[in-house]
Amino acid sequence: MLLEGQKQKALNINWNQPSLNSIAPKTLDLIIVGCGTIGGALIKQINEQQKILAARNLPINVLGIANQKGILLDPAGVDLSCWQENIKNVKGRYNLAELSHLVKRNNIANPVIVDCTGSREFSLTYPDILEHGFNIVTANKIANGEPIAFYKKIRQLAEANNKRFLYETNIGAGLPVIDPFKKLILAGDKLNRFEGILSGSLSYIFGEIHKGKTISEATISARELGFTEPDPRDDLSGMDVARKVLIIAREAGLEIELTDINVEPILPEEFNRFTTTEEFLTALSDLDTAFSVKVADAEKEGAVLRYVATIEKDQCRVAVEKISSDNPLHEIDGGENILAFYTRYYDPKPLLTRGYGAGPDVTAAGVFGDILRLVN
Amino acid sequence: MLLEGQKQKALNINWNQPSLNSIAPKTLDLIIVGCGTIGGALIKQINEQQKILAARNLPINVLGIANQKGILLDPAGVDLSCWQENIKNVKGRYNLAELSHLVKRNNIANPVIVDCTGSREFSLTYPDILEHGFNIVTANKIANGEPIAFYKKIRQLAEANNKRFLYETNIGAGLPVIDPFKKLILAGDKLNRFEGILSGSLSYIFGEIHKGKTISEATISARELGFTEPDPRDDLSGMDVARKVLIIAREAGLEIELTDINVEPILPEEFNRFTTTEEFLTALSDLDTAFSVKVADAEKEGAVLRYVATIEKDQCRVAVEKISSDNPLHEIDGGENILAFYTRYYDPKPLLTRGYGAGPDVTAAGVFGDILRLVN
Repeated sequence: MLLEGQKQKALNINWNQPSLNSIAPKTLDLIIVGCGTIGGALIKQINEQQKILAARNLPINVLGIANQKGILLDPAGVDLSCWQENIKNVKGRYNLAELSHLVKRNNIANPVIVDCTGSREFSLTYPDILEHGFNIVTANKIANGEPIAFYKKIRQLAEANNKRFLYETNIGAGLPVIDPFKKLILAGDKLNRFEGILSGSLSYIFGEIHKGKTISEATISARELGFTEPDPRDDLSGMDVARKVLIIAREAGLEIELTDINVEPILPEEFNRFTTTEEFLTALSDLDTAFSVKVADAEKEGAVLRYVATIEKDQCRVAVEKISSDNPLHEIDGGENILAFYTRYYDPKPLLTRGYGAGPDVTAAGVFGDILRLVN
Repeated sequence: MLLEGQKQKALNINWNQPSLNSIAPKTLDLIIVGCGTIGGALIKQINEQQKILAARNLPINVLGIANQKGILLDPAGVDLSCWQENIKNVKGRYNLAELSHLVKRNNIANPVIVDCTGSREFSLTYPDILEHGFNIVTANKIANGEPIAFYKKIRQLAEANNKRFLYETNIGAGLPVIDPFKKLILAGDKLNRFEGILSGSLSYIFGEIHKGKTISEATISARELGFTEPDPRDDLSGMDVARKVLIIAREAGLEIELTDINVEPILPEEFNRFTTTEEFLTALSDLDTAFSVKVADAEKEGAVLRYVATIEKDQCRVAVEKISSDNPLHEIDGGENILAFYTRYYDPKPLLTRGYGAGPDVTAAGVFGDILRLVN
């Protein structure tokens, strides 16, 4: 947003020659916090695309990369070909006040914190980050699932500081969901009903149980493929899906809390008693027979079981549902997500988005998409 | 983009008081050209949403509404509750140079021409419009289907003049397609294959022939419902679909022309000999038997016929295809579109978007979405 002002300044200094200063403010300066699977994939994509983007007048500079151990900083741009090596030797750690000074000292007009952590602690610092004049792009969905007062505070601070808070990958990873839905609502559309499969791991597990696996076999296989959390109970509890449907419901204008969502976990309560994942996985086979009966019952009707998030009449529900073959959720398996928005404008057939809802490349590409929104 | 510069100016004049001038440049001033079905729906949506948007710091002002007969202008904002009446009495006509003066006289920082016409003549004036300092949002896909030199010229002029050229509704009406695909490509994704159903009328017709209608019955019914052009041959020629797949292919980086696309029309060449639509519709029943045989053949294999646009190995094809039941295109009917992007990141399952690809509300909402991209 400083472009015109800066241009004017540059022109005052040096009227007739093109000045680097007049171009500089368009650059977007990123501080990538968290460089595990998602952050790592993002850095790789930026490294690959940086020259192409600069040639298209969309210059992106990585000012810093931070992990729990330290922060690699270079106002001229961190060398993305050897950051893994270099970050091992850094002494400084992520410090917002220091970053803010660095940004001011270097006349950086458009700084962005990119949150690729899964940290609640870090997401609670978003208000501070915005007040220090940084935009936020986040793949971390914790902040948007916090109590509504915090949810609103982030938005108010973003507006007050003329900064953006973008989180497209909170739902469906790289699938275009949040931004298009936001725009539909602003264009006067109204959500009548939402139905979706929002978990890659549960999409895989429920797909497999209709291909002959038992629930315990499907879960173990999903874990081995890296689709679930280290302890699959974190997936099977349904709370991850509940947090996602909460975010969608809030975009639709519902002022609700996580506790307002009716969550039917896949596992009976008693499975929480196991202290280790291994004990739990061994015990899981006790559910196999009962689950197989439900699967067979559904199949008799030509239906399948799916773990579905629903928004209807201002209520959110997350549960195992029997899905008939004419429902677009029927075909979803193998880690795909699907989101069906039944709205005032999309009626009677919904607006549907479908594809992988997890994975490093698609998630990083979604974060990249948010970053590109800030360059424009 | 003038925000900071303007704010500075306002502050020089009146340091201590909040000034209206410091807020004004954020307003987006629209000149809506073409106010038929799409333009009319857009004006209705803006009228409904204007206060909500202003309250959310996204002020939109309709500076003008133009049709073939005249232009209704008001720098303070056209009254959207009675524009249909008022436009009947206007004397002036759309004139770019005059609009440009009006914009300068009124210090309008962010003017946008919104093309809701279907006019080739008008779309050929885009270079002029950009050079006069207007952004362009268009529902008209003609410009993007012109020879590649013109296609590039628009983009170069937009960049040189620091203006935006947005056309999300060129494909799939309000479905989120162009912007997400553009961002994916910029994030380093590569298109391996595209398959889609891009015509609402042909989606309806091919759906109906598998519900028992003949091709002539389905076409007449589609026409009666207003899904086709007045002469359905314009739909059945496949050229509308060819133009759309050309636009997608160009987004993927292919520098190709409309004539490079392999188009298999639904009708044999000889149907062009009829001078009136009525003669053509009567003759169409000659195709019924042959078509019904093809339909029955497909159904024997559990497949359906669909009119499909394909991009594969840098080649585009538009043709009637036999689609098996495991292909996501199988379920599409009733006017829905579907777009399946098989890419480097979305592999082996594609990124899918599905929903109505025509209709006044969804198209206007898509245009509205592009407008909102400019306010941000």
